[in-house]
Amino acid sequence: MAQKTQKLVEEITPMEEDFAKWYTDIVKKAELIDYSSVRGCYILRPYGYAIWENIQRILDTRFKELGHENVSMPMFIPESLLQKEKDHVEGFAPEVAWVTYGGSEELQERLCVRPTSETLFCEHYAHVIHSYRDLPMLYNQWCSVVRWEKTSRPFLRSVEFLWQEGHTMHETAEDAMAETRQMLDVYADFCEQSLAMPVLKGQKTKKEQFAGAEATYTIEAMMHDGVALQSGTSHYFGDGFARAFDIQFTGRDNKLAYPHQTSWGVSTRLIGGIIMTHGDDNGLVLPPDIAPIQLIIIPIAQHKEGVLDKARELAARLKKIVRVKLDDSDNSPGWKFSQYEMKGVPVRLEIGPKDIEQNQCVLVRRDNREKIVVGLDELETAVPAALTAVRDGLYEKALKNREERTYTAHNWEEFLQIANEKSGFIKAMWCGDEECENKIKELTNIKSRCIPFEEEHIGDTCVCCGKPAKHMLYWGRQY
Amino acid sequence: MAQKTQKLVEEITPMEEDFAKWYTDIVKKAELIDYSSVRGCYILRPYGYAIWENIQRILDTRFKELGHENVSMPMFIPESLLQKEKDHVEGFAPEVAWVTYGGSEELQERLCVRPTSETLFCEHYAHVIHSYRDLPMLYNQWCSVVRWEKTSRPFLRSVEFLWQEGHTMHETAEDAMAETRQMLDVYADFCEQSLAMPVLKGQKTKKEQFAGAEATYTIEAMMHDGVALQSGTSHYFGDGFARAFDIQFTGRDNKLAYPHQTSWGVSTRLIGGIIMTHGDDNGLVLPPDIAPIQLIIIPIAQHKEGVLDKARELAARLKKIVRVKLDDSDNSPGWKFSQYEMKGVPVRLEIGPKDIEQNQCVLVRRDNREKIVVGLDELETAVPAALTAVRDGLYEKALKNREERTYTAHNWEEFLQIANEKSGFIKAMWCGDEECENKIKELTNIKSRCIPFEEEHIGDTCVCCGKPAKHMLYWGRQY
Repeated sequence: MAQKTQKLVEEITPMEEDFAKWYTDIVKKAELIDYSSVRGCYILRPYGYAIWENIQRILDTRFKELGHENVSMPMFIPESLLQKEKDHVEGFAPEVAWVTYGGSEELQERLCVRPTSETLFCEHYAHVIHSYRDLPMLYNQWCSVVRWEKTSRPFLRSVEFLWQEGHTMHETAEDAMAETRQMLDVYADFCEQSLAMPVLKGQKTKKEQFAGAEATYTIEAMMHDGVALQSGTSHYFGDGFARAFDIQFTGRDNKLAYPHQTSWGVSTRLIGGIIMTHGDDNGLVLPPDIAPIQLIIIPIAQHKEGVLDKARELAARLKKIVRVKLDDSDNSPGWKFSQYEMKGVPVRLEIGPKDIEQNQCVLVRRDNREKIVVGLDELETAVPAALTAVRDGLYEKALKNREERTYTAHNWEEFLQIANEKSGFIKAMWCGDEECENKIKELTNIKSRCIPFEEEHIGDTCVCCGKPAKHMLYWGRQY
Repeated sequence: MAQKTQKLVEEITPMEEDFAKWYTDIVKKAELIDYSSVRGCYILRPYGYAIWENIQRILDTRFKELGHENVSMPMFIPESLLQKEKDHVEGFAPEVAWVTYGGSEELQERLCVRPTSETLFCEHYAHVIHSYRDLPMLYNQWCSVVRWEKTSRPFLRSVEFLWQEGHTMHETAEDAMAETRQMLDVYADFCEQSLAMPVLKGQKTKKEQFAGAEATYTIEAMMHDGVALQSGTSHYFGDGFARAFDIQFTGRDNKLAYPHQTSWGVSTRLIGGIIMTHGDDNGLVLPPDIAPIQLIIIPIAQHKEGVLDKARELAARLKKIVRVKLDDSDNSPGWKFSQYEMKGVPVRLEIGPKDIEQNQCVLVRRDNREKIVVGLDELETAVPAALTAVRDGLYEKALKNREERTYTAHNWEEFLQIANEKSGFIKAMWCGDEECENKIKELTNIKSRCIPFEEEHIGDTCVCCGKPAKHMLYWGRQY
């Protein structure tokens, strides 16, 4: 019976065989992404976009709780505006898309499609900031930006991508610095709690800073294969842009002063992070907070009397507490199991005639396939508990992976050996000199990740030059 | 005391003096919009964007209830893709922005910034529609689009604007037509219920149809000055794009067939509609459903003991049922009254020492300034009732304005006279010939609005040529 209607869930390449292909298989077969004919631009399909909507909802609520307001800036930046802050334009001009024609008319000044919007926000701030009473100004926008990247991979690197960019202005340097650190904490908490993705918090070296920033903070996650993913950044600008854009306010002392600025962002790259942190050979594994479907109900022997009715009754009941879907299609249960494993649904509920007789059902966790027999009257507590267990299980597994793949290099030989043989983070002492950073990158093709907020003392000398060390740095290959 | 801290709320130009200037004053002084240095592109400030967020939330919920799913398409369309459907490219090519450079490299094929996304959706549909089981495909996206308009006005006409675009594919022409009509109804209900803005529903003439559509349906609102605002449209495409993009599916009869298509959209232009439908000489008037602040609490004699405490207590209580703000700044109550009238907050709650003594407060409606004394224990019912009364009051007033400004022309002399002397809708019979439509436009500079779904029989002959009439048409100047 089941055999007749059985479709096969398409196979995906095993992770160990080819991680890159495994990744691409998942984004396509879990129906997250479709390719468009525009180079480096992807289509987010409903299931992929629904993950982004959940990310947006949680973060947007948190931003607003902290007093931020959403705005919408133009997508175009006139060339002269982009050029106002010198470091910034140097960093971004080589990778922007230029609009040169409107209809059949050549523009007098070309416009770039925003790669980021500091310049637009600053132009606006100059109009609306007059007094210390106007500060802080805590703005955010959800939009897409464009960076003319040569290579692209779904979610990880693309010409256009969706993100949010927070831009804030403050009365004092201290206030701005506190905001910069606060927003990094918001990102880190979100990644750890809602995405079950452990992150390192730290500061980027000067070489890796955002163009125009005085300090860039980062959260760095480790993917299943040991490669790093920069997952979110927050930047402290001091008053550099404010001076370039002539933004001044009358202070409490009645004197004119320049405000201090921050910006911070996360993007759909987080979805790439979720895939590569939690996915397995059966497909996607989604942390419950952002899963479009948190619970999939699969009736067993659904042609038997009462099964579908009971399944529908449970779906209606559980809809009040979780995002639930009932699959009552005529595909076989086996096909459905595979299908929703591919889609990463965190918990599956199986219910058949024997279960109904005993007033129970089976919950199956996606992360470890653990089965739990649960009385039907306990579902309101058992389902949320199972979801929490999945989140915790995912987090523990990811943390273990990161711990196992974090290595310490006390000297150059050790560094080289780890770089050649392992994939993961390398902790090493550093003199603080950009020359050493460049040299390590050149010789190993590994970039510095960050100076962690919690530095460990693992030696006294720089692994590269042997001079006295100033900081402990994390190193790692990156997506 | 109050005098000392009093700031003046900036004056706005009276409507009757200069409606256009009144409009611009409101968008600036209610802090909805700021001008950017990008020609024809506006900045939505927090208060303006919050209105859009409320519009989005209500419509998005409704779309999803009806089975639609959100997706995200690229913002760029390669020139060759735009050209695939001939009528469509003819309509849009003259007004698109062209990207010709990526960084310092000239592109082999230029890309336009989407003016609308039918072509992108169709390219994707060709990948994902295989069987009748895949239909209907009910997609929507929230994004911005770009049309290289020569003139611009905040919310009404701009180079870039925010909107949503629904794009759906159906098994049969009937299904697609039903969707086209359904979504127009969704828009009309939303405008009438949530925006308190009466709309006419009807079909555009062939001349005014969307480029590439077989039929375009529209909702037409009338602004305070009698000028029409096309507020939302839905389009039926038949299988024209499907043929151009070679989108085919295997039908129930096992034969290949072309699916039938719709698209539909509303934009931030709705905010312009709200302003010009409900605003008055004191500023903005917001319908409660989309007002960022629904209730403003203004303490009277707030330096007196107990007043601020009580005001805070009420704010905390009412927060559970409405979007409430307490203004406890040291500005005078008079200034606060004017400020929140300017911002269009639908209901104001005043509370002072005498009110507290009597366990009451005063509610003041923004639309007609009616004051209602309400016992503090009844606020949970009185505040929602006052909001409903504001919505109903606004709707009635707008409907009355439309009725008073709707004229009937039985012949050409009447048409001309109304066109010259009045501002509003003109109902007139029409032979169905585009030549007459063109002639009327040429002679009066008035465009046809729509053939209403509910046609009245007001004569037998075309007002223009005198030949037998086929339809009743609405005419009117437009924003």
